[in-house]
Amino acid sequence: MSFERGQDGTTLLESLSSASRAPGNSSSVESIDFDVYESQTNLSKGTSRTGRTVLQSSLKWMAIALVGLATGSVASGIDYGIEFLTKSRFGLIKSLINAGCSSTVLVLVHLVLCTSLAGIAAGLVCFVSPYAAGSGIPEVKSRLNGVDLPVVAPRTLVAKACGVLFSVSAGLPCGKEGPMIHSGAIMGALFARLTTRLEPHSLLHEMDLRDFIAAGGAAGVAAAFGAPVGGVLFALEEGASFWNPQVLLQTLLCSSVAALTLNLFLGGVDSSGFGTLGALGVLTFGSYFESNATSYHIWELPFFIALGIVGGLMGAAFNALNVPLSLWRMRNVGAAGVKRFCEAAVVAAIIALIFIVPPLLLNSCYVTDVKQYKHDSLSITCVPSEHHYDSTLGLFMTPSEDAIKVLFHDPEPFHSGLLMMFGLVYFALACWTYGLGVPSGLFVPSLLSGAVLGRLIGQAVHTVGAVAPAGMYSMVGAAASLAGMARITVSLAVIIVEATGNTQYIIPILFAVMIAKAVGDLFNEGIYDIHIHLKHVPFLESDAKVQLCNEKVSKVMTRQVESLRSAESLERLSFLMQTSHNAFPVVDGTGSLLGMLSRSVLADVARECPEGLETEGPEAVDLKPYVNLGSYSIHESATVRRAYALFRSMGLRHLPVVGHGGILKGIVTRRDFLEHLTRCAV
Amino acid sequence: MSFERGQDGTTLLESLSSASRAPGNSSSVESIDFDVYESQTNLSKGTSRTGRTVLQSSLKWMAIALVGLATGSVASGIDYGIEFLTKSRFGLIKSLINAGCSSTVLVLVHLVLCTSLAGIAAGLVCFVSPYAAGSGIPEVKSRLNGVDLPVVAPRTLVAKACGVLFSVSAGLPCGKEGPMIHSGAIMGALFARLTTRLEPHSLLHEMDLRDFIAAGGAAGVAAAFGAPVGGVLFALEEGASFWNPQVLLQTLLCSSVAALTLNLFLGGVDSSGFGTLGALGVLTFGSYFESNATSYHIWELPFFIALGIVGGLMGAAFNALNVPLSLWRMRNVGAAGVKRFCEAAVVAAIIALIFIVPPLLLNSCYVTDVKQYKHDSLSITCVPSEHHYDSTLGLFMTPSEDAIKVLFHDPEPFHSGLLMMFGLVYFALACWTYGLGVPSGLFVPSLLSGAVLGRLIGQAVHTVGAVAPAGMYSMVGAAASLAGMARITVSLAVIIVEATGNTQYIIPILFAVMIAKAVGDLFNEGIYDIHIHLKHVPFLESDAKVQLCNEKVSKVMTRQVESLRSAESLERLSFLMQTSHNAFPVVDGTGSLLGMLSRSVLADVARECPEGLETEGPEAVDLKPYVNLGSYSIHESATVRRAYALFRSMGLRHLPVVGHGGILKGIVTRRDFLEHLTRCAV
Repeated sequence: MSFERGQDGTTLLESLSSASRAPGNSSSVESIDFDVYESQTNLSKGTSRTGRTVLQSSLKWMAIALVGLATGSVASGIDYGIEFLTKSRFGLIKSLINAGCSSTVLVLVHLVLCTSLAGIAAGLVCFVSPYAAGSGIPEVKSRLNGVDLPVVAPRTLVAKACGVLFSVSAGLPCGKEGPMIHSGAIMGALFARLTTRLEPHSLLHEMDLRDFIAAGGAAGVAAAFGAPVGGVLFALEEGASFWNPQVLLQTLLCSSVAALTLNLFLGGVDSSGFGTLGALGVLTFGSYFESNATSYHIWELPFFIALGIVGGLMGAAFNALNVPLSLWRMRNVGAAGVKRFCEAAVVAAIIALIFIVPPLLLNSCYVTDVKQYKHDSLSITCVPSEHHYDSTLGLFMTPSEDAIKVLFHDPEPFHSGLLMMFGLVYFALACWTYGLGVPSGLFVPSLLSGAVLGRLIGQAVHTVGAVAPAGMYSMVGAAASLAGMARITVSLAVIIVEATGNTQYIIPILFAVMIAKAVGDLFNEGIYDIHIHLKHVPFLESDAKVQLCNEKVSKVMTRQVESLRSAESLERLSFLMQTSHNAFPVVDGTGSLLGMLSRSVLADVARECPEGLETEGPEAVDLKPYVNLGSYSIHESATVRRAYALFRSMGLRHLPVVGHGGILKGIVTRRDFLEHLTRCAV
Repeated sequence: MSFERGQDGTTLLESLSSASRAPGNSSSVESIDFDVYESQTNLSKGTSRTGRTVLQSSLKWMAIALVGLATGSVASGIDYGIEFLTKSRFGLIKSLINAGCSSTVLVLVHLVLCTSLAGIAAGLVCFVSPYAAGSGIPEVKSRLNGVDLPVVAPRTLVAKACGVLFSVSAGLPCGKEGPMIHSGAIMGALFARLTTRLEPHSLLHEMDLRDFIAAGGAAGVAAAFGAPVGGVLFALEEGASFWNPQVLLQTLLCSSVAALTLNLFLGGVDSSGFGTLGALGVLTFGSYFESNATSYHIWELPFFIALGIVGGLMGAAFNALNVPLSLWRMRNVGAAGVKRFCEAAVVAAIIALIFIVPPLLLNSCYVTDVKQYKHDSLSITCVPSEHHYDSTLGLFMTPSEDAIKVLFHDPEPFHSGLLMMFGLVYFALACWTYGLGVPSGLFVPSLLSGAVLGRLIGQAVHTVGAVAPAGMYSMVGAAASLAGMARITVSLAVIIVEATGNTQYIIPILFAVMIAKAVGDLFNEGIYDIHIHLKHVPFLESDAKVQLCNEKVSKVMTRQVESLRSAESLERLSFLMQTSHNAFPVVDGTGSLLGMLSRSVLADVARECPEGLETEGPEAVDLKPYVNLGSYSIHESATVRRAYALFRSMGLRHLPVVGHGGILKGIVTRRDFLEHLTRCAV
């Protein structure tokens, strides 16, 4: 029963103390307390109450709807921007082809265009907000878990939303969806703060801010894929650490408004006239109404399950490869600055080269034809011209989202060898891109890699007489690949259904994603969790997901605690304000716990002192009215499992541990649990 | 701060003490403790651990899949049975028509057939298991909340699964989905118990049993509508009180297997040959691939929203009307026995009469034609024959599920007057039916009432040039009506999408269900919650949903507590075993709380006494090794809100309240909270 803390938990301990190396200049990562502070003062002022007037409640729901509207509008803007930039880029190349320019000139112009676009994206990350890099999902997930990262700043929104427009238009193997989720989350935080300013009592506590962020994130998914239900489920499955029926409704409203906004703006693009909703043309991954979706046969199920297995392996491989690369980047490139900018520019140039050169070299092809998908894409016809060489080589120069559409829907078979080559090249480049200093989502690259895999297997199964079209194998493969990487299941299945309008293949998709997740989990964590850990974020998993030892909480707690008496001298108060602690246990003369006093409340008390405060004896301040008297505590003989469940479920920041007679014995925080978890895992 | 318990909480208190009048012969309704019991003995034996070996884990997942398989098979059996019985019923009438029988004979035969079928269903409820009545959703929901109702007995499964086959075939305005959910939940409980018998350590605690029941319930929805994702969401939104990522995956697997099983069995029916999956023909509410789904215009959105409002009002009216009827039934009919049987038979006869007589009387019609839907249904052609009279009158004699299909898909307009008459009659009869002594689901009747409403509004909007087909208005109306009654949102939207294969109208559906829920909530609770309260079930809502006063928990707790010393005499132990309490706080000499000792553990101790036990002093038993030492407790100065959150989140059965120095002050249970809630609401 001796005090073993820190003995063998050094790895994570080091990690935690090195959290200052994370982007931003926070000297250490702090946690957020989602618990309601119920001191006598607060209770009498009514600031701790959870009820709201009708006006306050309406204001809150209106704000939620506005988050959806804003997120949908930003997403539509990004969509239009990407379309415009991509069309311009291809348009320039096309006019050069028409003008009879040589391949060398084409390659050079292509290089310059792609690198410049990627450079703008990288500039926004490296010189405006380092938190705009990557997908943003790990950051939002951490914030929702109660880790106080500065990830929801308006500055980051600008860098992220503008940045993703350029990184996707640059032809990088990345998607817009992660950044859209992050943008939505920031919108949520913004509107929550605006609402509080408008009517201070309409939103209360950290909880409401958190739930607004979750709703905004869901709206981001909804707007990225036109998938309102998928957005809600993604927030539930991957994003939010806290969930209740109220949050479900808020998130659903926010998602629905975002999807409606997107549908309204994009409906206009698709020539059916502004105001047309529910048009099949706006489905992100193309509609199967006009194409060849049919039923499938029970004997094809093992192939779909095999896709799940391979998708899981692919995802695990992606995650495993990305770790050393990310570590290398953290050591040698850093989170911001010129070095990171240069890396992004160089990598973008190399990727642009890789995507255009092999098709040119192969069989001495030359650029002749432009094939029409949603955007224009360049397709490179070979001599001797063969149709499937043509469309397969075209994939190299097609924007990723459109390439997914082609693989899902094209009834013509692709050239298997070239398709496999494309898949491998794309997979490698996507892995290289993730972690680069540009806003970059992972959904689309992972879906595309899986779509290639599915198409290959589908075409192979067709030689023995598959019933399902190869495009459907592609769809199942895409789902499996993303599930293998991100370890999401039901939300992904719904996103695919909403983005294709096809519910017929829901059962194969569900089996594929469940199996891909199970297979991936054998090897490593999901990519978002990996990046959370790489960034040394003190993230607390659901207590159903972690394996805790049967140790007593007394072996885990911090024993050196600065505590206060219920009547305390001003000197002691000012001394404690110098420390870095964020809450102090208040005890009586016998050392028995009375409750917790938070630093911010203490600061208020110290500021207002000595006037207006009841003082007991000379220079002593009566703290009782300010103490959170009923705060949760745990007995020292409770297991860590039990303490963790309480801490995690209630969203606490500090949990005092008491012994017999209510005597304060120590305190447990997020980090004590994480150290214990590391020790257990050893 | 005086002890006010029971002063004005009498209404609910009476309700609670009269819970013995609920079906079954439990003398009082007990709660379930989902918390892990961590005494020294348990910890050293390892029976409290949450980890599992690979074998135990595989066994658990296999059992979950088997629950899905069994639920899917039972659901397929019910589907086949309903099809067979309905076809036989119509077939007999048809042959009588062909033989030239008079209308009187037809009506009489119809009456006898319907009443006999309903009689079988009622017999199973009244004489086999009273818990088989109604939808079963309130019962399953209560069980998942931690109320120990005997609702998951195998006997109930037989009565429910067989019963619903007959009640639906009898042409009653009820559906099969509620009973399928209940059947699935019972399957979950059965397989959980089987698994525990096979390998005692593979499933642990009440938690696993609970999660198996939730998964089974989800599989029931999945099998009822071919909606695997809808099933998971229904369990999440309406069924389960406890949820975590692990439960999500289990539920998803169970649902997917159930949907696959159903798809496999039903695929064979639809002439495409056994083994065909994903065929559009098996979609519960018909596919829009072959029909006329198109996009809609933004100006139609207000009409969809209006459907949401009217749907909400309709649902609230249904619920309001059902309350006095249910109370009357509880007082005058009872939960089982001959009275209840007779009521069911009489009501079934009247309903059968109402459905056949008006079409016969109207415009001196006579039965001439039989129109083909999925099942055959009788359509009554009038003189002079007009097409829309024909198809509108046909609705009266069409099985409810097929009537929904017709309203969703028929491109021909219906006769508005007759349609409205049908809607009103059907709505009234559905309300009369719910609570009758037969297994009867509410989804289908509510969807059908809403489909009529939607079709009426859709046809009206078409006179001013609607873009969306009237069938789509019907679909949105159906969703709104069910949301107004059951107050479910996202799960319902997904069920509709999965049951029609149409994602185009997801946004109008989402808005309609959100608005219907909001409107309905202005008037009363959802129908399942109403029935939970009518049955006096001590149900604990999520703490986000209840409005708790700012009272201290000390005003709510029970002060008279039978407590134990850590070393206690055998006499005292045997005395306490005579009481009805299910756990006892253990205190030391000063009255300071050590932990909780459960009745079952105490019983074991008493049984094994005196041999093998450490005894302290003459006749004293050392209880310490058996006490759940770290059990949660709450400080008396904590608010009720805080205590409720802890109690509800952790699934506790008893929460000891301590004062300063850890002195035991009282205990709070489910009923103390419920009394407080009633008092707050006054």
